[in-house]
Amino acid sequence: MERADRELAFMLRYENIAWFSDGKVKILDRRVYPRKQEFVICENYHEVIQALRDMVTQSAGPYTAAASAMALAAFECKNMSGEKQRKYLQKAAVEIANARPTTAKRMGLITSGCLDTAFKAMDKGENISDAIMDYTVKINNMRYNKVYKMAQYLADMIPAHGAVMTQCFGETIVGQLCRALKEQGKDGVRFFCPETRPYFQGARLTATVCCDMGMDVAVITDNMPAFVMKKEKVDVFTSAADAICMDGHVVNKVGTFQIAIAAKYNRLPYFVTGAPDKVHPTVDTVTIEMRDPKFSLQAMGVKTAADGVKGYYPAFDITPPELVSGVVTDTGIYTPYDLERYYTDGNMGEYEMVI
Amino acid sequence: MERADRELAFMLRYENIAWFSDGKVKILDRRVYPRKQEFVICENYHEVIQALRDMVTQSAGPYTAAASAMALAAFECKNMSGEKQRKYLQKAAVEIANARPTTAKRMGLITSGCLDTAFKAMDKGENISDAIMDYTVKINNMRYNKVYKMAQYLADMIPAHGAVMTQCFGETIVGQLCRALKEQGKDGVRFFCPETRPYFQGARLTATVCCDMGMDVAVITDNMPAFVMKKEKVDVFTSAADAICMDGHVVNKVGTFQIAIAAKYNRLPYFVTGAPDKVHPTVDTVTIEMRDPKFSLQAMGVKTAADGVKGYYPAFDITPPELVSGVVTDTGIYTPYDLERYYTDGNMGEYEMVI
Repeated sequence: MERADRELAFMLRYENIAWFSDGKVKILDRRVYPRKQEFVICENYHEVIQALRDMVTQSAGPYTAAASAMALAAFECKNMSGEKQRKYLQKAAVEIANARPTTAKRMGLITSGCLDTAFKAMDKGENISDAIMDYTVKINNMRYNKVYKMAQYLADMIPAHGAVMTQCFGETIVGQLCRALKEQGKDGVRFFCPETRPYFQGARLTATVCCDMGMDVAVITDNMPAFVMKKEKVDVFTSAADAICMDGHVVNKVGTFQIAIAAKYNRLPYFVTGAPDKVHPTVDTVTIEMRDPKFSLQAMGVKTAADGVKGYYPAFDITPPELVSGVVTDTGIYTPYDLERYYTDGNMGEYEMVI
Repeated sequence: MERADRELAFMLRYENIAWFSDGKVKILDRRVYPRKQEFVICENYHEVIQALRDMVTQSAGPYTAAASAMALAAFECKNMSGEKQRKYLQKAAVEIANARPTTAKRMGLITSGCLDTAFKAMDKGENISDAIMDYTVKINNMRYNKVYKMAQYLADMIPAHGAVMTQCFGETIVGQLCRALKEQGKDGVRFFCPETRPYFQGARLTATVCCDMGMDVAVITDNMPAFVMKKEKVDVFTSAADAICMDGHVVNKVGTFQIAIAAKYNRLPYFVTGAPDKVHPTVDTVTIEMRDPKFSLQAMGVKTAADGVKGYYPAFDITPPELVSGVVTDTGIYTPYDLERYYTDGNMGEYEMVI
């Protein structure tokens, strides 16, 4: 594939992952992708909430899914009277935002934005669902542009013929980083993607994007990062984040903390991509979601442990600022110890920065 | 089950994992255990070598399998003339010892011991295969006794109601540690077993033994150790080793290095169990085995990554002495920086210490 085609394929495969049309929300089921290309079809917004809880989509997926759920809620209440309609949408906005505790605050920004859009459309007598989806397209485009700038700053940190370690699936940033490396003429960069148990997002999603973008990419199991950093002379560890708290703590898929510790021990930097998150002034505002422990007792649907053995499954972990070399944003790289500067520099860190 | 019964079950399930009888070697297939209880049947010693390369058995399993393979080789050549028989057994001893590069030296001690036993039996006109299996029973019994002493020293490091993190499958030491904790009256100790990808020995074997021994045990995925250490206040990280070099470097299942780094960061000790290994005066004598990379692209037989993505699979990693708090032996705990003392104290570190 030529590069332009590859990028188109990339957008189609990884970005249109949840969409409202014809009174339904269709979500790409990332639990089985790329082995199977299946969609979960939701006929009301409660089904979208359930899909979010069931981890049908991850990374940026839940945000597009949440906006699509708001469009669906508007479709559901389109024949109600104005006041009832407003209340229905307000209730939906709160419920959708709280689908998963760890991302509730950031998700709330998305659903409030949709709610504002909906109220304006109502006042103008426009189709509310269409207005919400137009708004979703607009914020996604803003996000793509910002993420590409971020990718350029991150690519600056990576030498030609260097090696990069990822964690989980950073969504848009993964493909944009590959693109930026190519535009900087940096050939021969190798990617090592830890598989990211228990859902294998690294193996299934990150590695697939790198491969589609023509990169040399290897999947490793989650016990190998420290060894691979040393043996293969990895230059940079990078991940996106579910939240970058203003005090420099990074909340991301479980395992990030451990790889960041290994990176520091092996003397390589850890760069997290994304905007500092004003809804989390300190790490104390973060709730770590404990998910169904049984999920750690299987792999790809096959049972791994004997009866009587317990599971344990924290969805995220917290990496303290001392392990973070820099926060890579659309306007440059910041120390985790002075993230206020991102805002005093005049930036707008909003949900369009969600990656 | 009463304790004695439990121990018997433990021995039957985990110790008689490879055995020569009726002209065949039968090896418990740990790749599918405990999901299925299947045996690989080898009709000549080359098939045992292949089974060792195919990871049919792990931990102490390969040593018993190697001794059984020598008994099988003796069975194969029983009708040859004396000189031919000696040469056949000598060739077998070298080939079996070299089945897997990382353990070649230690395995060589086993096969030489079997060879000596065979030559003595030949001189006395005894059944050679029987003599080798009697020798195997003898060294296993010596090993059990030594490992139980080791388990008592390790149990001393663990408080009642404490939490222990394991890595991979330490074989005999796992069950013996549970027994020692009970005998010391330490109730409520919790075990966290990382699953140990790509073969899931932690999930399938270690957790099963702990559970059989009546302990509270949870399986975690390999990206969780650092988080669990902090969140659950883990007291001790412990593992066995494929080799403890005389210079204090520990060679063990890939992931040990990473968990040891996380343990140091979280200020908890890492205790490795086993005898210092005179066949490895320094870490430079160790060859890290790189295995079929494709194996990292599947889990429990199900493909995880897209076509075009590479795999990567080091079987072991190396943990430097600065991350090792103590080497727990049958005569006490030694600093990794002075392992000669184990021998100057008058101990015999031989293959009966293999765990």
